[in-house]
Amino acid sequence: MRVLSGIQPTGRPHWGNFFGAIRQYIDLQEDNDGFYFIADLHALTTVREPDRLRGYVIDAALDLLALGLDPAKATMFVQSHVPEVSELNWLLLSGAPMGVLERCHAYKEKKAKGLPADAGLFTYPVLMAADILAYDSEVVPVGEDQVQHIEVCRDLAGSFNHSFGETFVLPKAKTLVDGAKVPGTDGQKMSKSYSNTLPLFCDDNLDTVKKINKQIMRITTDSRPMEDPKEPEGDHLFQLYRLFADPADTEAMAAKYRRGGFGYGEVKKAIAEASEEYFGPARAKRADLEQNLDYVHQTLREGAQKARVVAADVLSRAQKACGLR
Amino acid sequence: MRVLSGIQPTGRPHWGNFFGAIRQYIDLQEDNDGFYFIADLHALTTVREPDRLRGYVIDAALDLLALGLDPAKATMFVQSHVPEVSELNWLLLSGAPMGVLERCHAYKEKKAKGLPADAGLFTYPVLMAADILAYDSEVVPVGEDQVQHIEVCRDLAGSFNHSFGETFVLPKAKTLVDGAKVPGTDGQKMSKSYSNTLPLFCDDNLDTVKKINKQIMRITTDSRPMEDPKEPEGDHLFQLYRLFADPADTEAMAAKYRRGGFGYGEVKKAIAEASEEYFGPARAKRADLEQNLDYVHQTLREGAQKARVVAADVLSRAQKACGLR
Repeated sequence: MRVLSGIQPTGRPHWGNFFGAIRQYIDLQEDNDGFYFIADLHALTTVREPDRLRGYVIDAALDLLALGLDPAKATMFVQSHVPEVSELNWLLLSGAPMGVLERCHAYKEKKAKGLPADAGLFTYPVLMAADILAYDSEVVPVGEDQVQHIEVCRDLAGSFNHSFGETFVLPKAKTLVDGAKVPGTDGQKMSKSYSNTLPLFCDDNLDTVKKINKQIMRITTDSRPMEDPKEPEGDHLFQLYRLFADPADTEAMAAKYRRGGFGYGEVKKAIAEASEEYFGPARAKRADLEQNLDYVHQTLREGAQKARVVAADVLSRAQKACGLR
Repeated sequence: MRVLSGIQPTGRPHWGNFFGAIRQYIDLQEDNDGFYFIADLHALTTVREPDRLRGYVIDAALDLLALGLDPAKATMFVQSHVPEVSELNWLLLSGAPMGVLERCHAYKEKKAKGLPADAGLFTYPVLMAADILAYDSEVVPVGEDQVQHIEVCRDLAGSFNHSFGETFVLPKAKTLVDGAKVPGTDGQKMSKSYSNTLPLFCDDNLDTVKKINKQIMRITTDSRPMEDPKEPEGDHLFQLYRLFADPADTEAMAAKYRRGGFGYGEVKKAIAEASEEYFGPARAKRADLEQNLDYVHQTLREGAQKARVVAADVLSRAQKACGLR
């Protein structure tokens, strides 16, 4: 099954991104024909500093490769390296009802807040549809907030097929398991907008562990006495620990909570150790890859070549269907 | 000077199109580096029948060549044969303020009439900007109704340059001489929307002259007696005759009007003869070209190749400037 995942290159991923999305995307490479694109054209609507955008794109590729994306199994490429997507974008814009786009939440929310919106944000769902349709994608794993955009994609594709004959494959959304179970350092859902994130990687890999451990030790906790027995479910430290620990260790920790007589510092240390063990290989791999940027660029080039073969075929079908060829 | 003209492939041109636009476009090939594109991507927003669109595109190329566009002097190509334009379209959509597009008249008028608008019509001025900027166009000859879109193009290009450094050449509009002086068969301005047009060419070239002459003979006239002296200025038959006649013949006709004692049928016959002489070579050339479609396709291919060299350079500049490369 062709599965397409788009990765927004907008900075360092955090634990919430990883468990809520990235790991789930990458797992799909095993039993599917996975296409992974780094959405630089989408990022352009928000990242208006060229050096930062370039950095984010290569960071996204490094992250994916370090976290297990395997170029032998999956196709990884940069969105703007496939011009066919931009060509499809116009074919879909012609005929995309304004009402459909006006109802899309990203635009609607920005407008409701009185913020100035641009046509990039407004037509974002159409470019997303072009991305999906360009590769005959059958399944698109997305968060809850993107399900609406998959519906828009199906609508646009369906209406094109209706007007011009069967051309596009209608994709299905696969809703990702909610990342809300990854709490941030303040106990709320981990999210950049709450400034409560724990990163996977830091700028300087050597210091990553030290820096992250410091942040783990600063996670807020309640002030119940050490000796009190505590219910592990709902405790954010326990939730974080469970992300990394195997079932036996998780059960042992839960028993400790219920017994009482332990300090949160102890749990934090366990989180630090378990996360270090869990992310250690990826961190080492990322440090290696940073020394091999040629390999990364080459991988992206080869990915784009593979992706373009598919996209050129789809574009050609669409152009013939609507009379451009 | 690089001069860009876009031709909408939406059916047979009439005398108003010719004198109001086409002839003025084509004249510019003499002292300029003229780029002429057939706007199939724009047509897609209104022409939703593939065969009709394909026909219109080749018709537009035949018309231009028959009417004197010289591939040795100018570059003629089909819009969708230059994918770089679609790529630039997204770069300009990101950052195009919604307010600017909402104020554009084509969209505004449709919306005011309560007609359903699509995102193609809404973002049309952005694609037009991409067309213009892709070729470093310095001058764009347009009708009054398109001057606003050139302003939008300048705004988008200026704002991109401001954000990312000098990238795009800011074009200037060259307003075409108003075609209002070409009256239709009912005396109003010649326009498809009034169903009062006289065509340059007909489907069957052999019958063209016969058919057109019939339409000329049916032009509405007033019922003043033959013998009355008449003022030629403001008379639509005289205005039509003047389009084709040389100054001496025009003066002779004006004198005849002022003297009186002539029939409108006489003027109509003179229009038929003068227009036949005027358009005769183009009609013959078009009939020839129809037998040489390979040559026409080859010309379009070569034009696209030339255009793509320029567009690829501009796109590359823009991609580097905003961080996509």
